[in-house]
Amino acid sequence: MSTPASKNLETFPNPRTGRDYTIRIRIPEFTCLCPKTGQPDFAELLLEYVPDQVCVELKSLKLYIWNYRSEGHFHEAVTNRIMDDLVGLLQPKFARLTAEFKVRGGIYTTVVSEHRQPGWENPTPVSLP
Amino acid sequence: MSTPASKNLETFPNPRTGRDYTIRIRIPEFTCLCPKTGQPDFAELLLEYVPDQVCVELKSLKLYIWNYRSEGHFHEAVTNRIMDDLVGLLQPKFARLTAEFKVRGGIYTTVVSEHRQPGWENPTPVSLP
Amino acid sequence: MSTPASKNLETFPNPRTGRDYTIRIRIPEFTCLCPKTGQPDFAELLLEYVPDQVCVELKSLKLYIWNYRSEGHFHEAVTNRIMDDLVGLLQPKFARLTAEFKVRGGIYTTVVSEHRQPGWENPTPVSLP
Amino acid sequence: MSTPASKNLETFPNPRTGRDYTIRIRIPEFTCLCPKTGQPDFAELLLEYVPDQVCVELKSLKLYIWNYRSEGHFHEAVTNRIMDDLVGLLQPKFARLTAEFKVRGGIYTTVVSEHRQPGWENPTPVSLP
Amino acid sequence: MSTPASKNLETFPNPRTGRDYTIRIRIPEFTCLCPKTGQPDFAELLLEYVPDQVCVELKSLKLYIWNYRSEGHFHEAVTNRIMDDLVGLLQPKFARLTAEFKVRGGIYTTVVSEHRQPGWENPTPVSLP
Amino acid sequence: MSTPASKNLETFPNPRTGRDYTIRIRIPEFTCLCPKTGQPDFAELLLEYVPDQVCVELKSLKLYIWNYRSEGHFHEAVTNRIMDDLVGLLQPKFARLTAEFKVRGGIYTTVVSEHRQPGWENPTPVSLP
Amino acid sequence: MSTPASKNLETFPNPRTGRDYTIRIRIPEFTCLCPKTGQPDFAELLLEYVPDQVCVELKSLKLYIWNYRSEGHFHEAVTNRIMDDLVGLLQPKFARLTAEFKVRGGIYTTVVSEHRQPGWENPTPVSLP
Amino acid sequence: MSTPASKNLETFPNPRTGRDYTIRIRIPEFTCLCPKTGQPDFAELLLEYVPDQVCVELKSLKLYIWNYRSEGHFHEAVTNRIMDDLVGLLQPKFARLTAEFKVRGGIYTTVVSEHRQPGWENPTPVSLP
Amino acid sequence: MSTPASKNLETFPNPRTGRDYTIRIRIPEFTCLCPKTGQPDFAELLLEYVPDQVCVELKSLKLYIWNYRSEGHFHEAVTNRIMDDLVGLLQPKFARLTAEFKVRGGIYTTVVSEHRQPGWENPTPVSLP
Amino acid sequence: MSTPASKNLETFPNPRTGRDYTIRIRIPEFTCLCPKTGQPDFAELLLEYVPDQVCVELKSLKLYIWNYRSEGHFHEAVTNRIMDDLVGLLQPKFARLTAEFKVRGGIYTTVVSEHRQPGWENPTPVSLP
Repeated sequence: MSTPASKNLETFPNPRTGRDYTIRIRIPEFTCLCPKTGQPDFAELLLEYVPDQVCVELKSLKLYIWNYRSEGHFHEAVTNRIMDDLVGLLQPKFARLTAEFKVRGGIYTTVVSEHRQPGWENPTPVSLP
Repeated sequence: MSTPASKNLETFPNPRTGRDYTIRIRIPEFTCLCPKTGQPDFAELLLEYVPDQVCVELKSLKLYIWNYRSEGHFHEAVTNRIMDDLVGLLQPKFARLTAEFKVRGGIYTTVVSEHRQPGWENPTPVSLP
Repeated sequence: MSTPASKNLETFPNPRTGRDYTIRIRIPEFTCLCPKTGQPDFAELLLEYVPDQVCVELKSLKLYIWNYRSEGHFHEAVTNRIMDDLVGLLQPKFARLTAEFKVRGGIYTTVVSEHRQPGWENPTPVSLP
Repeated sequence: MSTPASKNLETFPNPRTGRDYTIRIRIPEFTCLCPKTGQPDFAELLLEYVPDQVCVELKSLKLYIWNYRSEGHFHEAVTNRIMDDLVGLLQPKFARLTAEFKVRGGIYTTVVSEHRQPGWENPTPVSLP
Repeated sequence: MSTPASKNLETFPNPRTGRDYTIRIRIPEFTCLCPKTGQPDFAELLLEYVPDQVCVELKSLKLYIWNYRSEGHFHEAVTNRIMDDLVGLLQPKFARLTAEFKVRGGIYTTVVSEHRQPGWENPTPVSLP
Repeated sequence: MSTPASKNLETFPNPRTGRDYTIRIRIPEFTCLCPKTGQPDFAELLLEYVPDQVCVELKSLKLYIWNYRSEGHFHEAVTNRIMDDLVGLLQPKFARLTAEFKVRGGIYTTVVSEHRQPGWENPTPVSLP
Repeated sequence: MSTPASKNLETFPNPRTGRDYTIRIRIPEFTCLCPKTGQPDFAELLLEYVPDQVCVELKSLKLYIWNYRSEGHFHEAVTNRIMDDLVGLLQPKFARLTAEFKVRGGIYTTVVSEHRQPGWENPTPVSLP
Repeated sequence: MSTPASKNLETFPNPRTGRDYTIRIRIPEFTCLCPKTGQPDFAELLLEYVPDQVCVELKSLKLYIWNYRSEGHFHEAVTNRIMDDLVGLLQPKFARLTAEFKVRGGIYTTVVSEHRQPGWENPTPVSLP
Repeated sequence: MSTPASKNLETFPNPRTGRDYTIRIRIPEFTCLCPKTGQPDFAELLLEYVPDQVCVELKSLKLYIWNYRSEGHFHEAVTNRIMDDLVGLLQPKFARLTAEFKVRGGIYTTVVSEHRQPGWENPTPVSLP
Repeated sequence: MSTPASKNLETFPNPRTGRDYTIRIRIPEFTCLCPKTGQPDFAELLLEYVPDQVCVELKSLKLYIWNYRSEGHFHEAVTNRIMDDLVGLLQPKFARLTAEFKVRGGIYTTVVSEHRQPGWENPTPVSLP
């Protein structure tokens, strides 16, 4: 099963490169197919990243996500694959992808995948009271 | 009381072995019996783990859970027993099982059990603002 | 005011002594009396502990809690007293008792008390994404 | 504008001095006046502290809070002032006061102030799973 | 597109300079325009900061925010720009700005930007149970 | 089992007799005993009534409710009994008492009892959009 | 498949026969089996009734419900069957049974069944503002 | 105790007199004093009305409400009094005032008062599915 | 665009024909395409009906719903079309279909369609307090 | 102040004219200006209608709503004006517009306006249990 979708992902230059900041993108309408049964699967995706030189363009991300609609993928594999596509494109300082799949067989599955740029240090978080 | 259930648990190869990631499985429909009174007990289970070489197959997990339906188990013991079965099967880098039992006698009990692979280090978590 | 209640607390052997795990017990129906005015006070208790050799038996805990129904106690004192009774009985690796009292005079009071076994180290918590 | 209110605050001896524990007091009915316009302001206060030798008596705290009803105070100043009054009285090991003001001009303001006794160390918190 | 808005931001002296404390300001009614399409965008802003010598005056902040109503800005850029304006004005010990944009194309975007005064140390946070 | 409590209920003259209006009183802290087992029962009461000549005085109602604390009553009976006491005292145009008992044996029970003054007509309710 | 369970249902005399009132019983822990696949089904039941001469005894109701645990039943049929058993036993003025089944195949099913005693009139409900 | 407040209430002409429509005004910041004890009381008011010739001006309503801040009033009386002031001023086709008082003595009280213009008929409400 | 899907819908005989009762089916995972743009649309469907001679079989309903996945339909049209298919198949005494579409262009649309068997009378609903 | 906005509203033919059904459109992003102060106002609109010959086209509705962004309008007047525009365009069997304005001066205002086609009868609603 080939997915030319990732070539469609576009970027734009990070408008504030001198500062580490967070971009959080929630996508409640992800759907693909079960590779075993062909039945539809649904999930809510949450992408969080600290951009380096580029940010992902939202409209192209929406189109990229739509491409999974008619493809068969296992939960654990598809989450890591989207992660790999985004990391390859954005080369972010840090990225985390959470895929919260809808119930199947009375069971709710969530997969969370992270990537960290080698050498990047998470600044000590400031915890305000 | 013998439980041949654990033999039914099946695995599949971890599709992304080079990366530590989380699989979170919520099972709201666990039920067993009270070993003293024979009365039904109900719980919601939450399994979270970082896979190593294999992942648990969801359908076999569902069947494994169903096997407890007609068995008698104490809260603290059954939570640790399921944990031991899963750890023996998956040899995960890390696993946590939370069993939230429904009210009995006006009291709500939750049991949480964890396992860590010897030598595995939890990567410093990245806390994005 | 004497409270023979604590003698009624019973234990059973920890079924999984080789592993540090958490038992969390929520008791929404605690009531005692105000020692000044004799008026009823209500609270929700939350007991969390890491057992060592024994666990508290739930039915005896329920009866123990009922014994406070006709006794007069101040908020701060009764929370610490129940804590002392449980610690004396269970000798747990760690215990925390949270007593969330219902509103009096437009003010909501919560008291939280902890106990740690000398020498016991809280294992570095694993924070999964 | 003079506030003799703080003299009314009363204490009682900490009933469990050998243990660091938390007292949390929520006060949803705080009101004062805007010093510029004379218009009423409303806030919900949350006081959290670790007592040392004394605890604050709740009824006197209620009366102390009522005294602000006809006084003019800025958000940032009044939060710190109540904090200073409580710290002067209780000499607590630690205290935190959160004042969550109701919306004004479409904007919601919260002020959080903390005090720590010199030399007091926050015990490493135990984070149970 | 020029924005003279930032000159309107006003300050007042921090009323309690000897203590690090938090001011949290939630602004649910931010709106600007999409620079590509001219369509309105909406967001909820959350500003959190530890003041140094001055605090931001709320009424001027409200007016400053209103000035964005007829301007075109991208999500990532406008969040960092407001941050830069506030940091330039307040020179705070620490500041964090969270902009939670409303859904566009089925996608929800949030941008979080932080600033820390060189040399300022976040005091070890006290985590009360 | 005798209950002299109802004599303590006090009334005051209805301050606006020319108009049918509703008084709604929520009492989250009702407790009595199970007449079979002696175990405590807990409920939240909701009294709603349209007063005729008198209203119930709130402090006396609070004391009346406290009197049930050490008495044994079945759910269905005690709800109707409190209703009868209030109706006898207030002779209201209409009254409804809802008693929402806390879970017992995994079962939640609510009892709702109504009384209508003979000849009183419920004015056609105005349902605003 | 025979169900002797209904013989276990017990009643007690209605303690307040002169008044139409409501008894509402929520049972979150119903489980039976799918007659086709043998897989467990779960539901939350809500029984609401206006008693005539007798009320259902709660402990016997709990035991009656447990009897379905190892029986196979379709959603629509089992709801009406429980209804028929209760109506046969209680001969209530009115009864309604709502069975809210847990998700199967991404679909949530609820079945609601009612019974009205011939000749019984629902008193015009009083709708208080 | 005299209240000249009602004279301050102002009106403006109903901008759409040919149509019955609803105006709903929620006022979460009402406070007055208990006439017995002098202690502050707090309530959330909800005014709903169908205007006839005039509407109430919001700023004057805010000022009118502030005037109760230093006055003593019983719950049932003050709700009806505000109602009478508004009815006298607005002569609305219909009005309803709900006053939800904050907890006192563990008891929550709400008072609801309605007024209907003689001869005005509530149009049959359209209940859309 | 042809949809052979409706032929796949299957029925089973109503197991309790002598009684009017409600079957409520919630389907959170409906998706089709926008006929103008080809972009995916998502909706949550709620089907409620009173069966006559037959009920809809759930598995066939699930498959029927899946068939819309690759078809283009407008909101208002597709809701009425599914309604027409179900009414043609089930000939129910009453049916209602609610389709709650996910946000598009900042706007949330819901369409509700009903069908009533000629001559069927909705029994006067019993409104229990 | 002239508003040519209403000419932009477009319609399409009702796809199911033989049946009364409901279209519900929620618009959380309405904003206009206060005609007195020029300050922005925000509201969430809810339009519900039963179409006759035409339905409102969603994209044109979105653009129509945007036109209010730079116009000054009072709450009561703007709600009725949008209603009049929609009624003039759609000639619906029934329409209701609810405008829930955001807080101003601590006061939350909602305006609800309805229109009914002369001679149209709301079918008796079916209230399923």
